[in-house]
Amino acid sequence: MKPRPGIVTLITDFGAGPYVGAMKGVILATAPGTTIVDISHEISPQEIIEAAFVLAQCAFDFPPGTVHLAVVDPGVGTSRRIILAEADGEIFLAPDNGLLTLALAKGGKARAWSVENPNFFRHPVRATFHGRDIFAPVAGAIAAGEKPDAFGPEIPAAEVRRLKIAHPRKTAGGIAGEVIFVDRFGNLVTNITASTIGRLASPGRLTVACAGRKISGLKRTYADAAAGDLAALIGSFGLLEIAVANGSAADFLGGRTGEKVTVRRT
Amino acid sequence: MKPRPGIVTLITDFGAGPYVGAMKGVILATAPGTTIVDISHEISPQEIIEAAFVLAQCAFDFPPGTVHLAVVDPGVGTSRRIILAEADGEIFLAPDNGLLTLALAKGGKARAWSVENPNFFRHPVRATFHGRDIFAPVAGAIAAGEKPDAFGPEIPAAEVRRLKIAHPRKTAGGIAGEVIFVDRFGNLVTNITASTIGRLASPGRLTVACAGRKISGLKRTYADAAAGDLAALIGSFGLLEIAVANGSAADFLGGRTGEKVTVRRT
Amino acid sequence: MKPRPGIVTLITDFGAGPYVGAMKGVILATAPGTTIVDISHEISPQEIIEAAFVLAQCAFDFPPGTVHLAVVDPGVGTSRRIILAEADGEIFLAPDNGLLTLALAKGGKARAWSVENPNFFRHPVRATFHGRDIFAPVAGAIAAGEKPDAFGPEIPAAEVRRLKIAHPRKTAGGIAGEVIFVDRFGNLVTNITASTIGRLASPGRLTVACAGRKISGLKRTYADAAAGDLAALIGSFGLLEIAVANGSAADFLGGRTGEKVTVRRT
Repeated sequence: MKPRPGIVTLITDFGAGPYVGAMKGVILATAPGTTIVDISHEISPQEIIEAAFVLAQCAFDFPPGTVHLAVVDPGVGTSRRIILAEADGEIFLAPDNGLLTLALAKGGKARAWSVENPNFFRHPVRATFHGRDIFAPVAGAIAAGEKPDAFGPEIPAAEVRRLKIAHPRKTAGGIAGEVIFVDRFGNLVTNITASTIGRLASPGRLTVACAGRKISGLKRTYADAAAGDLAALIGSFGLLEIAVANGSAADFLGGRTGEKVTVRRT
Repeated sequence: MKPRPGIVTLITDFGAGPYVGAMKGVILATAPGTTIVDISHEISPQEIIEAAFVLAQCAFDFPPGTVHLAVVDPGVGTSRRIILAEADGEIFLAPDNGLLTLALAKGGKARAWSVENPNFFRHPVRATFHGRDIFAPVAGAIAAGEKPDAFGPEIPAAEVRRLKIAHPRKTAGGIAGEVIFVDRFGNLVTNITASTIGRLASPGRLTVACAGRKISGLKRTYADAAAGDLAALIGSFGLLEIAVANGSAADFLGGRTGEKVTVRRT
Repeated sequence: MKPRPGIVTLITDFGAGPYVGAMKGVILATAPGTTIVDISHEISPQEIIEAAFVLAQCAFDFPPGTVHLAVVDPGVGTSRRIILAEADGEIFLAPDNGLLTLALAKGGKARAWSVENPNFFRHPVRATFHGRDIFAPVAGAIAAGEKPDAFGPEIPAAEVRRLKIAHPRKTAGGIAGEVIFVDRFGNLVTNITASTIGRLASPGRLTVACAGRKISGLKRTYADAAAGDLAALIGSFGLLEIAVANGSAADFLGGRTGEKVTVRRT
């Protein structure tokens, strides 16, 4: 046991209710005093990429040693692996379905283990609810100080499954990317990074195009655009974002995940 | 005071906002250091059976001594009792409107008390918000180590109000039950237990019928069905469940709570 | 550092997801052991008055010293101030956009500071996400025991920006007010206080009018009205409220925030 009980964060597509309740109960029964932190239980059902984005964009803000438990798991109960990974001091626990793609891309050199030791599971393990029966008790045990090797063999981090998440590509005079996340305000967050854009031109000499509309120049923040106006800017995660001041770019453009976005020199 | 401050879980139909905030504030003011665990504030307004199901399906996963505070209370401010109960080491606090029906059916031998001692209440007690003025400070006091007898007289557990929640019944060659919970994935959870089905036939020799559709045999987990296909299986709570792999059985069948489900030998 | 780590409550319009996750991570990294309490992340996007209401109605139920972090901030990244305030022992941290209007009106004598010291910020500070880069680390530092003067100069509390939130006014023989909050049950909470009404007439001799409908007399609690009937009563916050027993007054009347409500002697 560690001197201070650990932190376990939760990202699921379970919604509020008995599934989340059961996971929290098992974690607290396994590791009394654990601090449980809800990040989201509102991931769209079975949307692994959405969960991967949420996880990667906030996990590294937590103190080292935090256990990030992410369960969006359409393959629950099949032979897919369960992965325990460590990157930049953060600990990740998730099904091996690509959910860790973005976190492992963002973190530094990673290590990974295959979780296989049934001594840490809640029995009987139901084929439909590994969240309660495998993930929760394992997360609790890690939070309580158990070492990764206790749960199963180390595997090459390169073996952890990655999703093919679109990377932006260079075009003649520009960059072509796409929307990878839509937030609650309807802001369209793209996969185009601030540094890529910075190499292209200064913020005032760029044209961003999306869903048939063109936006000239980048704003610094939302309120720098007139209310109701479409704006492009570098958002909270260092990514190009399309927004409507005091409104929703998603509603305005009908834009959603996968929508193409291009940036060109004006 | 106990050496470790206690855990209080919350199930309400209040949604996020000031009602939940006030309850949490009162609990922490009454019992500093309490671990508050959100299970759900998204119970459908005034749906006691839904809350009863959520409570019963996860309460017993928490460590003994956890206080489960459940407030779905259309009769707030009337003469309905407030019940403190104990079963299998878990502690329950709820209005006496049937909310404890399933938890007390699932737990072992129960004890119950009528909460009446105003010394533990927040004053003035408003007739519309016992959640903040009675339930929260009482939950805090229990979490801090107060004994049940301090809150009011012990009453026979059989006096705690039960809802008539449909039980499945035997039919010629089968079982007739109904949907009692629809989860966020649209899975239709029935009141038919795995053990009842087990006595009927082996999983491969069963036909499940619901909303005019027939499903042959039980799957082991969701991913064992082809995407978009209707499947029947024993779900996370040991109950028969109707699901659509990578989809929503509730949308597919138009099924909802109360929908009839039958199981027969093929 | 204080002997017991502090409490930080959160009210935002961020919804579940990476913004809330990042704020929680930064708070816990800044102040290990802090108790983070979710009040609401479901404030309607950019609705400052709604957040102001939620904050004021529950903040004073928390133990003294609690830090209430409220971020509904359409002006993020502009020159609007960030305010740290103290009233009745509660500590508030919010953008200076009127969000503290109701809390400071409800609390006793307040003190206020302008948060300006970048030593407490997370760097680089992004113009679109002060929640993570300024509010969260400052809240953590306060929870860990840092004194208000460390963050910037004290300013007159009267300088903190207030919204013109409608006050009810006297009319010939009555009071004219409006709906200021609609809760999850569809109850319409007005800005008319119990004490104002008490000076007008006894509960049985009042007529409440809203959206073209008249309601005779006040009920004591929801269940005192017949199911489906419109009722007026003094609700959980000591404010006049219009409700439908076992239903939604908002749906029934089409009422929403800003809807006019009058009270007269019968």
